[in-house]
Amino acid sequence: MAETKITALKFGGSSLADSAQFNKVASIIRLHEGRFFVVASAPGKRSKDDTKVTDMLYKCHDLASSGHDFMPVLSDIRRRFESIAEGLGMDYDFSSDFDTIRAHLEKGPERDYMASRGEYLNSKLLAAFMGYDFIDPATCVFFREDGTLDAEATNNALGKQLSGRQHAVVAGFYGTGADGRIKTFSRGGSDVTGAIVARAAKADVYENWTDVSGMLTADPRIVDSPEPISEISYRELRELSYMGASVLHEDAVFPVRSAGIPINIRNTNRPEDRGTWIVPHRDSMADGSRVVTGIAGKKGFSSMRVEKAMLNNEVGFAARLLDIIAAAGVSFEHVPSGIDTMSVIVDSSDFRAKRSEILENVRDRLAPDALIVDTEIALIAVVGLGMVYRKGVAARLFSALADADVNIRMIDQGSSEINIIVGVDESDYEKAVRALYEAFFRL
Amino acid sequence: MAETKITALKFGGSSLADSAQFNKVASIIRLHEGRFFVVASAPGKRSKDDTKVTDMLYKCHDLASSGHDFMPVLSDIRRRFESIAEGLGMDYDFSSDFDTIRAHLEKGPERDYMASRGEYLNSKLLAAFMGYDFIDPATCVFFREDGTLDAEATNNALGKQLSGRQHAVVAGFYGTGADGRIKTFSRGGSDVTGAIVARAAKADVYENWTDVSGMLTADPRIVDSPEPISEISYRELRELSYMGASVLHEDAVFPVRSAGIPINIRNTNRPEDRGTWIVPHRDSMADGSRVVTGIAGKKGFSSMRVEKAMLNNEVGFAARLLDIIAAAGVSFEHVPSGIDTMSVIVDSSDFRAKRSEILENVRDRLAPDALIVDTEIALIAVVGLGMVYRKGVAARLFSALADADVNIRMIDQGSSEINIIVGVDESDYEKAVRALYEAFFRL
Repeated sequence: MAETKITALKFGGSSLADSAQFNKVASIIRLHEGRFFVVASAPGKRSKDDTKVTDMLYKCHDLASSGHDFMPVLSDIRRRFESIAEGLGMDYDFSSDFDTIRAHLEKGPERDYMASRGEYLNSKLLAAFMGYDFIDPATCVFFREDGTLDAEATNNALGKQLSGRQHAVVAGFYGTGADGRIKTFSRGGSDVTGAIVARAAKADVYENWTDVSGMLTADPRIVDSPEPISEISYRELRELSYMGASVLHEDAVFPVRSAGIPINIRNTNRPEDRGTWIVPHRDSMADGSRVVTGIAGKKGFSSMRVEKAMLNNEVGFAARLLDIIAAAGVSFEHVPSGIDTMSVIVDSSDFRAKRSEILENVRDRLAPDALIVDTEIALIAVVGLGMVYRKGVAARLFSALADADVNIRMIDQGSSEINIIVGVDESDYEKAVRALYEAFFRL
Repeated sequence: MAETKITALKFGGSSLADSAQFNKVASIIRLHEGRFFVVASAPGKRSKDDTKVTDMLYKCHDLASSGHDFMPVLSDIRRRFESIAEGLGMDYDFSSDFDTIRAHLEKGPERDYMASRGEYLNSKLLAAFMGYDFIDPATCVFFREDGTLDAEATNNALGKQLSGRQHAVVAGFYGTGADGRIKTFSRGGSDVTGAIVARAAKADVYENWTDVSGMLTADPRIVDSPEPISEISYRELRELSYMGASVLHEDAVFPVRSAGIPINIRNTNRPEDRGTWIVPHRDSMADGSRVVTGIAGKKGFSSMRVEKAMLNNEVGFAARLLDIIAAAGVSFEHVPSGIDTMSVIVDSSDFRAKRSEILENVRDRLAPDALIVDTEIALIAVVGLGMVYRKGVAARLFSALADADVNIRMIDQGSSEINIIVGVDESDYEKAVRALYEAFFRL
């Protein structure tokens, strides 16, 4: 007898924005066999100028907490849900739920509680439409006192809830805080709920359904119609995400990664597309596999350069320098070093706030010969499993940048074989990304 | 009235190896005008298979201190000096000097004292030959208790000795330690004496006379007849020297650099050659100026890579990592970092001795997901003032390495605009240096 297949499916806000989208989601769900668990977001935008239900809920909260009349907005929210139910031909009564929300708002609204109601209501509605059980994450997703997810407690409680069931719908985005109140993840947190459901269900795959056919090889605001990525390893994803490529909430990776569960990013509006597979391991030397998996980057970095004669002979100099930066609560991205010089690349906004404190401490404690701050640096990561071991990759990369007349401010390669990170002037950023895309994807 | 020109001239061992070389040195010295001060080394090799006097002195010391008969070697040394004096037609009596040395050896020899006698005797001989005063650095070059040069005390004492004189010969290589005994610099330390003499004399130039027509653009053991460097800034020199290009003792740079005195490396056997000018500042955009000034490198590095999920979010992680390495007394060369991974490039021999201590501490205190040590890495520095701001330099560099089939293990660029440092497999080192030389000097 074959093992029962287990699937976790997460649908984003645009996938559940109206009844037409609900119907698409329902047919996608019904194609699945075995046991499966659905995580639903709040209704998203139906068109470009539409408002997400979560934003309406925040507005409601803000009006209520500042003593203004929230009822018109709350009624709009209720009408959004009613129109979905009507469009699905359902006879669904929202009265008791909205009475509860209204009572909460009148008593003194909590921001996280309010924000969570979009997922709560939408998931209950989807569960009713599909005929599945609804699971309220308030009963099984737990946060610690410091606000981070209590992964093990959650996994145990959620695992118990799922184990007896064939199918269920779990509301995304929230759980219960250490103080017993509703607490949400940061925006996009339903991705995290999907990941912890996948882990707790011991799923074979975590399907993340959204409105694009996978992750793209470059930022579509910079590069015209970049290719989607067909397969990417967790490590490559982490590097691209860290550098700004957004497809999943950052924290959504770890629960499934540690459990070895692949993620499949799919398009609710084009379910026939294969989407992007995020896998624990992949064969970068397979036929047709590209050298580079993706390109991502961010503006907003600064460099602080410390020059001091014989610095390299001072054992502990770098540790003291980084300690000063850490003590100011600033984290750094790279530490390029020369002979007698060492730089630290930091996030400009973090650094700006602590700049004088850091510079003063460096001057006092390290007595540098020179201390130079450079701002407006953009970092670009070119990521590809095993790319560093392939002949000519660095040559192609730097030739592309040279041909595009891009000045290279920093290069960091060597800690992992899957990326080269280049620093350029912010004003050259878009040009550099386009040149790299051309070099690795259009040739 | 024009200012009197002041020159410091240092002659290496091969420049003073025999009477023919002494005569060359004398004519070079006599071409100088104004005030000048000469620093002399011990007699070097007269031919490839010859022995340097300093090595003979060390041998003498070792024989004496292990209770063996040192007289045959001491007599050989005396004959070396006598043959120089004879060749110069001088009637010079070494008896009292050699009696003193013999008495010292019999009483219980000190290694540094013995090593210093080559410079002492050769400089006295040169002073007598030229008719100049001899200055014994035992009276004016001072070391601190920790063994480092006491630069200020030396500068004062030496300055006083020189100020009343037009010309003098100063013995290189040694001075007086904090304990009042003779103490030498490390091998090649006469270069340092030359530099401190130049500083103390407020010289206009420090001429360093040796047996090559300047510093070379690459290691001649790897590249066939590399070009000499005509002009190089102190900063470029420091980077090339640090990475193994040897022309001057490393510590010889700082005294003159801080005083803004240029160094001119000259060839005693080809005094007509312009040699290499080491200058405080130079115009890298001048006509005919090369993009790259020189290439140097070293084998013998290892990398320790630490992988840990969310490492970049752990403020202070790097400081703690480098602190462990500093606490083990190991200094590091580079810290390439990726996302969730950080490497430290260290000298293999330093690291080997502390490896288990460091790895254990990293495991205990940083709880990494993975900890990987790679050995047999060679580092290559491609150095050129302003090269990083010139278009296409990185492209040319990496294309050359790719065409030569060299795998790039690490790249570090960004802390100074004058170099790019590349890590390659030790087995690819020579091939890589040749490819880079071809790319930047033969095209």
